[in-house]
Amino acid sequence: TEQRTALLCLTIQMLCRIPNVSALPKAVKRRVYALKRLQVQSAHIEAKFYEEVHELERKYAGLYQPIFDKRREVVSGAVEPTDEECEWHSEGEEEELAEDLKKKAALEEKKEESAPADDPKGIPEFWLTIFKHVDMLGEMLQEHDEPILKHLQDIKVKFSEPGQPMSFTLEFHFEPNSYFSNAVLTKVYKMKSEPDPVDPFSFEGPEIVDCEGCKIDWHKGKDVTVKTIKKKQKHKGRGTVRTITKEVPQDSFFNFFNPDEDLDFTLATDFEIGHFFRERIIPRAVLYFTGEALEDDESNLSFVFQDLDEEGEEEDEGDLDPTVSIQT
Amino acid sequence: TEQRTALLCLTIQMLCRIPNVSALPKAVKRRVYALKRLQVQSAHIEAKFYEEVHELERKYAGLYQPIFDKRREVVSGAVEPTDEECEWHSEGEEEELAEDLKKKAALEEKKEESAPADDPKGIPEFWLTIFKHVDMLGEMLQEHDEPILKHLQDIKVKFSEPGQPMSFTLEFHFEPNSYFSNAVLTKVYKMKSEPDPVDPFSFEGPEIVDCEGCKIDWHKGKDVTVKTIKKKQKHKGRGTVRTITKEVPQDSFFNFFNPDEDLDFTLATDFEIGHFFRERIIPRAVLYFTGEALEDDESNLSFVFQDLDEEGEEEDEGDLDPTVSIQT
Repeated sequence: TEQRTALLCLTIQMLCRIPNVSALPKAVKRRVYALKRLQVQSAHIEAKFYEEVHELERKYAGLYQPIFDKRREVVSGAVEPTDEECEWHSEGEEEELAEDLKKKAALEEKKEESAPADDPKGIPEFWLTIFKHVDMLGEMLQEHDEPILKHLQDIKVKFSEPGQPMSFTLEFHFEPNSYFSNAVLTKVYKMKSEPDPVDPFSFEGPEIVDCEGCKIDWHKGKDVTVKTIKKKQKHKGRGTVRTITKEVPQDSFFNFFNPDEDLDFTLATDFEIGHFFRERIIPRAVLYFTGEALEDDESNLSFVFQDLDEEGEEEDEGDLDPTVSIQT
Repeated sequence: TEQRTALLCLTIQMLCRIPNVSALPKAVKRRVYALKRLQVQSAHIEAKFYEEVHELERKYAGLYQPIFDKRREVVSGAVEPTDEECEWHSEGEEEELAEDLKKKAALEEKKEESAPADDPKGIPEFWLTIFKHVDMLGEMLQEHDEPILKHLQDIKVKFSEPGQPMSFTLEFHFEPNSYFSNAVLTKVYKMKSEPDPVDPFSFEGPEIVDCEGCKIDWHKGKDVTVKTIKKKQKHKGRGTVRTITKEVPQDSFFNFFNPDEDLDFTLATDFEIGHFFRERIIPRAVLYFTGEALEDDESNLSFVFQDLDEEGEEEDEGDLDPTVSIQT
């Protein structure tokens, strides 16, 4: 291993032109160490900076809240927005929408208008639709989760109080339903915003270090995170066969609230999902509902463009503006 | 083009399961528009948030300044750090450094100790070394730039005053030299932190929108951003030949201060470089000098590991800790 390390040292130094600081004159090396000590001081100031940014996020959470409350009321149907509140000029996209598509839409609208179910309450399946649009969440979503998530009415983020250890909590608010009795399911993400004493230079701001779910009080027989399997057992001596039932874990989004026993995802993915809820989905939910926020998700779009290319499209890809088609 | 757009619409909707919002019942569509209006309000609050973060950065710039001043003094040799200020425990890396490497270093050190040039002033070529280590800067660096950059003594970032349009200025401080008379070369990056009225949802925080360099007062014949070429011209009538000299632009890092006439890089690269100076190089210069900050630069390291793999190394790559060899 020592020889190996030595080889690596040499290779890296040669190939990357990284200076061998130990080859510097002693007096210069000393000064470099002095700069490294200053750099550690810097890292601690940076940690304070991020604490203040967290404070600022708390403050702004309060400023966003009236908007999010209004969103929840519109989604649930508790409030009907006024005409003025619904005015939306979709810049030129009506014109760009091809005629046949428009006609089709008009037809469908007409059909729907004549149906009694034409005016459902609020925006049905708002959050479930978002789950389906976002790859990272879609992967966790199972068919048996969908009827439950239709009852999801809001997702909120709450920041830890000043002076408390840094954390944020995701709150999933459900309307009364036949699956569980909780009104809110929570997941707390604990964060750390201080340089690691052993490796202070790796500090890049707050990091999620731990998370904690919550107990879901499932109604009898409704827990989708387990399934009951039947197992036949043969008595060794007598040769008689009996059937026992056994509960085994099953894939479900709701394992998200029980991270210890998660089946589908590692802790790293879990942290990534928590971060994504906090930074993207909660602040801009409607854009994930309409698909506008998915523009960046290149894996989706490049897949589409690939198909067209193979069919012999000749125009330059640079001319295509996918926003045209997925904006509403 | 209309047909093409229609095709794209359909394809994207089918493949990505993005809802055709225009196919939603009218009443629901209205509510979605209401949410989109709320989303625009959100974007404007977010813009204010980023302005406050900018304020916070200004405040912290003041807190970092004494550390950066000390760094400048150590680098230039104006101040010799005390023994206490130079104490540095490099966790176990001495032990891990293979014996032969250590001996080699010891030999070199001895050689250097006997030489009179053994104690140069400060940390020679501190900033030039950083330029050489960072790919993005190394690409701009020409041989004729190197002797000039040996005179670079500090790089600072200054944030715009509150109430002023958001911007930051990079200041390159030079010791008196034979190339130009400026003591400081500057580059201002102008930023915008407000949602675009035409596309408010694309807002993701402050963006660099413009930059401005400075005039370098080159001493006669020292301007490395131009070269003189000789050109022979033949008189069309008389057939006589004359030689004229002409100044033409030449690649140089110093074109960075004259972005209008830049040769090497697009505005996007220029913005990226400005951002990198501000966010990475200025706050953690010593780590770019020693190479520790380059750990993330995977293109460098994966290249090294690739080589070892090809030579038949069998151990799992996961066991390798490249930090061992490039820390000092």
